Amino acid sequence: MSLLGRVSLPFDLKGLKIEDLKVLSDEIREMIIKIASEKGGHLGASLGVVELTVALHHIFDTPEDILIWDVGHQAYPHKILTGRKDLMSTIRQPGGIAGFTKRNESIYDPFGAGHSSTSISAALGFAAARDIKKQNNHVIAVIGDGAMSAGMAFEALNNASMLNTKMLVILNDNKMSIAPAVGAMSSYLAKLLSSRQYYKARNIAKNALHYTPFFEKVVKNVQKCTKRLATGSNFFEEIGFHYIGPVGGHSLDQLIPVLRNIRDNDQVNKPILLHIRTEKGRGFDSPEKSLESYHAVLPFDLQTKIQKKPEKSYLSYSKVFASTLTKIAKKNKEVVAITAAMPSGTGLDLMIKELPDQVYDVGIAEQHAVTFAAGLAAAGTKPFVAIYSTFLQRAYDQIIHDVAIQSLPVRFMLDRAGLVGADGPTHAGSFDLAYLCNLPNFICMAPSDEAELAKMVFTAYQINHCPSAVRYPKAKTNSIEFNYELEPLEIGKGRVIQKGERIAILSLGTRLQECIKTSEMLKKDGFDITIADARFAKPIDTELIRDLASSHDILLTVEEGAIGGFGSSVAQFLLNDGLLDGKLKFRLLCLPDYFIEQNTVQQMYEEAGLNTRDMCQTIKNLLP
Amino acid sequence: MSLLGRVSLPFDLKGLKIEDLKVLSDEIREMIIKIASEKGGHLGASLGVVELTVALHHIFDTPEDILIWDVGHQAYPHKILTGRKDLMSTIRQPGGIAGFTKRNESIYDPFGAGHSSTSISAALGFAAARDIKKQNNHVIAVIGDGAMSAGMAFEALNNASMLNTKMLVILNDNKMSIAPAVGAMSSYLAKLLSSRQYYKARNIAKNALHYTPFFEKVVKNVQKCTKRLATGSNFFEEIGFHYIGPVGGHSLDQLIPVLRNIRDNDQVNKPILLHIRTEKGRGFDSPEKSLESYHAVLPFDLQTKIQKKPEKSYLSYSKVFASTLTKIAKKNKEVVAITAAMPSGTGLDLMIKELPDQVYDVGIAEQHAVTFAAGLAAAGTKPFVAIYSTFLQRAYDQIIHDVAIQSLPVRFMLDRAGLVGADGPTHAGSFDLAYLCNLPNFICMAPSDEAELAKMVFTAYQINHCPSAVRYPKAKTNSIEFNYELEPLEIGKGRVIQKGERIAILSLGTRLQECIKTSEMLKKDGFDITIADARFAKPIDTELIRDLASSHDILLTVEEGAIGGFGSSVAQFLLNDGLLDGKLKFRLLCLPDYFIEQNTVQQMYEEAGLNTRDMCQTIKNLLP
Repeated sequence: MSLLGRVSLPFDLKGLKIEDLKVLSDEIREMIIKIASEKGGHLGASLGVVELTVALHHIFDTPEDILIWDVGHQAYPHKILTGRKDLMSTIRQPGGIAGFTKRNESIYDPFGAGHSSTSISAALGFAAARDIKKQNNHVIAVIGDGAMSAGMAFEALNNASMLNTKMLVILNDNKMSIAPAVGAMSSYLAKLLSSRQYYKARNIAKNALHYTPFFEKVVKNVQKCTKRLATGSNFFEEIGFHYIGPVGGHSLDQLIPVLRNIRDNDQVNKPILLHIRTEKGRGFDSPEKSLESYHAVLPFDLQTKIQKKPEKSYLSYSKVFASTLTKIAKKNKEVVAITAAMPSGTGLDLMIKELPDQVYDVGIAEQHAVTFAAGLAAAGTKPFVAIYSTFLQRAYDQIIHDVAIQSLPVRFMLDRAGLVGADGPTHAGSFDLAYLCNLPNFICMAPSDEAELAKMVFTAYQINHCPSAVRYPKAKTNSIEFNYELEPLEIGKGRVIQKGERIAILSLGTRLQECIKTSEMLKKDGFDITIADARFAKPIDTELIRDLASSHDILLTVEEGAIGGFGSSVAQFLLNDGLLDGKLKFRLLCLPDYFIEQNTVQQMYEEAGLNTRDMCQTIKNLLP
Repeated sequence: MSLLGRVSLPFDLKGLKIEDLKVLSDEIREMIIKIASEKGGHLGASLGVVELTVALHHIFDTPEDILIWDVGHQAYPHKILTGRKDLMSTIRQPGGIAGFTKRNESIYDPFGAGHSSTSISAALGFAAARDIKKQNNHVIAVIGDGAMSAGMAFEALNNASMLNTKMLVILNDNKMSIAPAVGAMSSYLAKLLSSRQYYKARNIAKNALHYTPFFEKVVKNVQKCTKRLATGSNFFEEIGFHYIGPVGGHSLDQLIPVLRNIRDNDQVNKPILLHIRTEKGRGFDSPEKSLESYHAVLPFDLQTKIQKKPEKSYLSYSKVFASTLTKIAKKNKEVVAITAAMPSGTGLDLMIKELPDQVYDVGIAEQHAVTFAAGLAAAGTKPFVAIYSTFLQRAYDQIIHDVAIQSLPVRFMLDRAGLVGADGPTHAGSFDLAYLCNLPNFICMAPSDEAELAKMVFTAYQINHCPSAVRYPKAKTNSIEFNYELEPLEIGKGRVIQKGERIAILSLGTRLQECIKTSEMLKKDGFDITIADARFAKPIDTELIRDLASSHDILLTVEEGAIGGFGSSVAQFLLNDGLLDGKLKFRLLCLPDYFIEQNTVQQMYEEAGLNTRDMCQTIKNLLP
């Protein structure tokens, strides 16, 4: 029996020797690669922290000691070692365990994640609570160097030293987040690494926490050298942390004694930052080797390591957006795109290849991305912020304060709007319609197919007096090649897809085909229904809506978003305009008021009632 | 005639000698104090940057050179020197100029503000646009040390060095934001100041931009001292800036040559950070001297400098909240409050005095504040985040991702919800109902008076299974003393204030008294109307609403918030429940779809139609 076969909880690691832990690490790595070959998923990040995870659970007493993984997509080894080994084959599957850490999945996941850079803040909360309760457990956050560039990580570091509390932040430095990390923090870390000697294993136990006195000596020397040199320490020390590192993150010979020392330390009464160096995708040698492809993979052949790509390669909405923008940007060099560390996810890698000077990757920094774009717009250029709907939540104040109030023409391209399948609730783009439609000065669009998307990108390009947004799904289109004419839409105007009577559906965005299916179903029962595509969530097409309301008995709006968005605007208009005082029956279909768990997108639609069956049922219930 | 009398635009400063500029500075300072004595307002910040403003407009060519003031409340001298001198007496008044910088007020305000920490991002946008257009103007951001602790400032710094562009960031270091600044950044700056010699005026011209070579020598020395010392520079240099400073911010003898050198520099091809040291409230000696009181003052006597306080001192909603929470927290030390640099504005200074260990001031760091609270909640304590509605926008993703998805019992106390008067649109709390009511797992309350507020704070204290929010206005209550019983409300239940027939108003929050006035007006016309106080924006009281809907012909909801909030939820319920299929006429009163400019709050209500007259009119229009 393998070692891993005998391990199911952290307790089982306690007695093992370092040599055993090394074998165990290899077995875990093998298991992760096998699972990824079958199911795909986030692979690289987990392979990078196998040894770290083993060492942490060997040294610390989880779940009493609090262990928080930033983002949480690197938690495969953690899940394997905390009672979920046998569930690993269900990861990211319908009904299975999540791809991220999740509180209601295990007591070993004290704080869930999905978005980056939250772990230090959360850990500080746990540490403060421990101090209030006069308990004595350890609190550990593990965060990547990419995540460290986000403002909230800095805010947390800045606050941590104030609380003067025991906490360990492990900086997992692999020189990248999803794409290679960018920005000053990243180059600073590289500089830091290259200028410091790696610890030798046998010195670590001795030195790890006897660092300060020696350091003080250094500072004194430095101060002798020049008065101009204010501080002699590194960034983390300056910001109030006790810095230890760099340590080789794949070496249990280094990790174990360092972590043991930190655990047993009673000398340093401030937060500790342990800087470890790891390699994303460690142990996975694929001929398709590319840094970004390590982040998440499709299922692959375990022998050849070649990913199983679908035969026909339909374009994603992301690609259609990016090709359209590239086409526009070629003709106007004042058209620029901004991404927050997602050049490939947003499709912008395409544009970077052709027009590198017209794309800004600002790192994981959504707040900055939006206000940077606002500055670009105020200066008269034409910025497009390409971002996942769920990540734009990070910049809501910047959208309101810097963009909407000043009515600056920043163009928001919201990818992954609506339901997203395996990534689950943390990544769903459910709220954008609600959080944008309530903002004055905004124009919001949602395409029902790829040709519409191209038109909307072009329309946004031409909107120069106010902000605009286009929200489109994480989905494949029906096209294999891109060849759309660039023609603008009339602002705030929907289109009638088919004319019928008595019953009308006004669809926004993704569910138009489902509405058409619904009409086909109802046709069998003898009903000819009207279907319109709203195109604009804001401003709503009041003329079209008034028309539909006055010439039908039943009106439905359908959208893939939470309450408070398109349907709510239509409702308010109909109500305050008196169009609902009469016999019109209006129903509003949107996402339900709970977070839908990971599933296939199709199953999520079923659950949300945004399918043919439910639409038919809703309509039939309204018929006399 | 005074010097200031002859100056109205930056051009008028060009020929002046340093001695004249000093006189001018004194005159500007005098003018600002005089205006503040009459109108009150933000005083301290502006007095701190008089010399800096004079020096900037003397050296640079605004508006071609872009000058962005972070927050913008320190821009009084800037406004005086950019064509708005004669309008200064209208500042923050209805129809007058704004208390912050504002794009549509002047071409000298290239980017408006109100919230902190946006200036570097915006300036970087302007710099990037300049480079795209191959222009050559300067771009300058002036940011305080408090604002520097916010994550987005860090994100911008982190990104700035990547773009390798010409930009000047002036760090206006006065050791405070509104309250004294907290956190590692703040103590770091103090350390930096104390360890560096101030420049002597005559050396500045020579040294300001010949700093690097000398510095490199230092670094080499340092590296000789020890290999362990990775970097010998300070934080700003590490992050890719060319650092100059510290410079005395009230000394034109220092500022003028340094700024001239920076302007004429063609050696340094990276962003420059100029660190100046100033004193908030410089030149204003009040016997009521307190650091925080310098931030914003009431009108005061110009001779004695004593503020004119109203005779009767009604409690603010902030105070009622804080007293209630303090009362609760005294009995349970796991009750903690979190503020993001607003201990006085939120009323929490009260609690700090009595229970200092139970309040965390995390600095200007709203994102961290929320996730820190989520950590505290996950660890079983009872955190209250006290924050202005408008500033909570900064943490929207943290609310969704860290609090709502995990259903953690973080209690949000939203001060300044709704319209805020003189501070204008940047500070209005218009969107919270919309951006919280659409989130699953949330409980949202809004009190109609101070007794209700106390009950709601206590109710939130008892909610341990999910997040909750209480939103209350920037207003005085009708009470002079606080003495409320702590009793909880039933979750999701409203109350009927008066029973009538045919017509019902369902009010949420602040406008209840106005609804009662409306009923008194209608009584004169023979109508007895029903009035209910919803108390909860989420979950809505479906039983009450069904009752009102089925026993009345006309139903109105009234709320002081943007579309997408309470009324939209009521509408969706009524619609999908079929309650609007019949003869019920439903109207939804909320804030209009544009940003309301600064005014008295009463006038803003008039503009929004949330007053007796408009409610009566709406109802009368619906009567046969």
